[in-house]
Amino acid sequence: MTFNKVTADDLKAFESMLSPERVFYGDAINEDYARDEMTEYGLYMPEAVLRADSAEEISAVLKYCNERKIPVTPRGAGTGLCGGCVAKFGGVVLSTERMKKLIEVDPVNMTATLQPGLLLMEFSKLLEGSGLFYPPDPGEKSATVGGNVMTNAGGMRAVRFGVTRDYVLGMKVVLASGEILNLGGKTVKTSSGYNLMQLLCGSEGTLAFLAEITVKLIAEPKANLSVLAPFDNLRKCVEAVPQVLSGTTPTAVEFMEKEVIEDAETYLGKQFPDKSANAYLLVRLDGASTDALDPMLNDLTDILLNAGANDVLLADTDERKTSIWDARGAFLEAIKGGTKSMDECDVVVPRNKIADFVEASQAVSEKYGVRVRSFGHAGDGNLHIYACQDDIEDKAWKQKVSALMDDLYETAKTLRGQISGEHGVGHAKADFLRESLGDTQIEIMKGIKKAFDPNGILNPGKVVG
Amino acid sequence: MTFNKVTADDLKAFESMLSPERVFYGDAINEDYARDEMTEYGLYMPEAVLRADSAEEISAVLKYCNERKIPVTPRGAGTGLCGGCVAKFGGVVLSTERMKKLIEVDPVNMTATLQPGLLLMEFSKLLEGSGLFYPPDPGEKSATVGGNVMTNAGGMRAVRFGVTRDYVLGMKVVLASGEILNLGGKTVKTSSGYNLMQLLCGSEGTLAFLAEITVKLIAEPKANLSVLAPFDNLRKCVEAVPQVLSGTTPTAVEFMEKEVIEDAETYLGKQFPDKSANAYLLVRLDGASTDALDPMLNDLTDILLNAGANDVLLADTDERKTSIWDARGAFLEAIKGGTKSMDECDVVVPRNKIADFVEASQAVSEKYGVRVRSFGHAGDGNLHIYACQDDIEDKAWKQKVSALMDDLYETAKTLRGQISGEHGVGHAKADFLRESLGDTQIEIMKGIKKAFDPNGILNPGKVVG
Repeated sequence: MTFNKVTADDLKAFESMLSPERVFYGDAINEDYARDEMTEYGLYMPEAVLRADSAEEISAVLKYCNERKIPVTPRGAGTGLCGGCVAKFGGVVLSTERMKKLIEVDPVNMTATLQPGLLLMEFSKLLEGSGLFYPPDPGEKSATVGGNVMTNAGGMRAVRFGVTRDYVLGMKVVLASGEILNLGGKTVKTSSGYNLMQLLCGSEGTLAFLAEITVKLIAEPKANLSVLAPFDNLRKCVEAVPQVLSGTTPTAVEFMEKEVIEDAETYLGKQFPDKSANAYLLVRLDGASTDALDPMLNDLTDILLNAGANDVLLADTDERKTSIWDARGAFLEAIKGGTKSMDECDVVVPRNKIADFVEASQAVSEKYGVRVRSFGHAGDGNLHIYACQDDIEDKAWKQKVSALMDDLYETAKTLRGQISGEHGVGHAKADFLRESLGDTQIEIMKGIKKAFDPNGILNPGKVVG
Repeated sequence: MTFNKVTADDLKAFESMLSPERVFYGDAINEDYARDEMTEYGLYMPEAVLRADSAEEISAVLKYCNERKIPVTPRGAGTGLCGGCVAKFGGVVLSTERMKKLIEVDPVNMTATLQPGLLLMEFSKLLEGSGLFYPPDPGEKSATVGGNVMTNAGGMRAVRFGVTRDYVLGMKVVLASGEILNLGGKTVKTSSGYNLMQLLCGSEGTLAFLAEITVKLIAEPKANLSVLAPFDNLRKCVEAVPQVLSGTTPTAVEFMEKEVIEDAETYLGKQFPDKSANAYLLVRLDGASTDALDPMLNDLTDILLNAGANDVLLADTDERKTSIWDARGAFLEAIKGGTKSMDECDVVVPRNKIADFVEASQAVSEKYGVRVRSFGHAGDGNLHIYACQDDIEDKAWKQKVSALMDDLYETAKTLRGQISGEHGVGHAKADFLRESLGDTQIEIMKGIKKAFDPNGILNPGKVVG
């Protein structure tokens, strides 16, 4: 791909489309725009950063850049983990960070319409008291909803409520040409041609620029409780999961190992309520009332004890819930804080292969002498595996981590898994994606990319490379 | 598009790929292959009908036809309503009617893998006693599961459990080139590149040929009950729906009017349990036990009475449930049986626009002097509207029904609806689709089609025309 550089004339044009104070270039660009949460994948400074306020501004910028062949990298809060929002080929970073409006909550149709830059935690706060609820719940609450849609983010509650794509009903998107399209709306189902909206979910800004979203809301569950079940070992722990899923309707089923819990304790400076075991299953139940949850709690307790849990610890007070879920929420930061650099993989495997995959990750840890930490969404078969550099020298680290990741993705393929459950591909995982899916699928994806973005200006170098 | 005709040499080639007794041509082709359930949309005799037994046979046929530029129309049980499975441009109908194997039920991962020609009613029978359950429940139980995937069929239980696309985890598909691709698998979520599998759901066999499917199963709900609520008029009836959805978790929410119920009584020769009202809401609840359903039933009863229902009739015995749901299940056949010919539309609108749309359908009925019947999935905003020819003379009927449908789709667009909720586009609705979505979206879809099927041999004339 050959693109044009951003010139002084281009900057003037951008200033007239937006306003001068929302156009940044040269030293005025904050260094954060060169990266997402994973510095491991390199720094890429954009030539200009534009903060859009509306679909019309996005349209003007895209139309201009499409004609001038300047790459445009969409960016929300920059909390991704695969370099999806960095300007791999330079050009313009077009940020939605100012587009934070909750445009409408429609209680009759149970929908919300919002701008893409609204943060998950802002959105949930704005819904408080409405009786309505947006289920997707990724660990990173300061991610934008738009970013969540573009990576098809999952999160803790996916077991019961599904992932982000299951909640997207409508989109206003801007094509590379600048044309604004409205897809879907407030309708809850459709069989009206190829579902472009579903295709855009998880397309990481490579096909069109997301400018507005309508999501489905559900009635807020009124009561919840959590259960922590300690097990002697991880295999026993994750082998309980299918029984939990067939016998109850859990909202979340997370697994965690002793070492990660200890990392979180250090990071948070707080004790975890139980330290007796090597592996834990954490299960959350939601329902209309505490009474309504009782029969399910009884079933769950029986299932866990029969599956070999040493105990079943109930967290039904706010304090108890907080102590457990805060630890769970801190895992990523705790691991990150304990090492100089790290790489991660986010594979998803069939649920009955979770233990195999975690054991494989322990084996490669020993093989390469690299410390590995893992946790994940046991109910989804989605694992987050972190390889930590610690005091390994930079050059050796690069070699080791590359070989280690190759091994992990090869294992995922053997287990009939996918390379990413919820974090996406970005540029960091693009080679692994091709390796996993094969050339034919990648070539079809490139054909799709061409149908949307013939000049390839939208987020180049991502997903399909 | 210019395609080649099927020659004697081609037939010989097909006979060697399959076996002679599964290759039909000339008078040996059953006339049913010229149509689906809607004769209104014309008869199109294929030049050959091939009954495949395996993905490998499908691959051989497609590879050959792709090189020879012979159109291939995939066909399951032929129960569609938009002409999706008819050979609009002649060529070959490639039928999956013999591919009925349930390959595997995996209780640990809660999945089933099956061939596309398995009928819905056969699939549900095979799952009986397993404790596992496949939620999609379209009215047409003799449709194939493969056909359901390709139209993204919805059905009664979509309100709670979602539509077919929500249950597809894996696919084996054959590209027009003959290449066999495995998409997804037993993993329950993914953010690994553009989701080709989601794109294929609802693509009506125009992008690839579906040869095997892996679907998600859920734990079978152990108890259910239904509630029938009579209302003075349709508006009151459908205006209760949002309250029902925000206050309870219904599996199905159907609306029905007096006239359609009378049609069904005549058709079935059985009485409906209530005849007091003009409009009815039929709500089904599922749960772990009858006891667990009690609080929800209480809430539902209060909501319906507060919303103006004249009564709330509980159907908790098999006999009572059957009398209601059999009537609901017979609506399409009952309407069809009562008229010489009919046309239908399957629009989906935001839930709060259902009454508006039904009233608009009554208005066009009067405007054109055409009898109209409607029923539908109130919980989804998905309406099935039938225009009946009765004794209108053929030429006048064509004109009237065409104008009437134009009006209805125009109304759907105004209400921000979509042209099809679950029946698809086929060839019959392709013009309405372009009218509804606009040229840009259709051109993107054509670009996608080209990425999969450069010679355009797969189901030509459908969806994107």
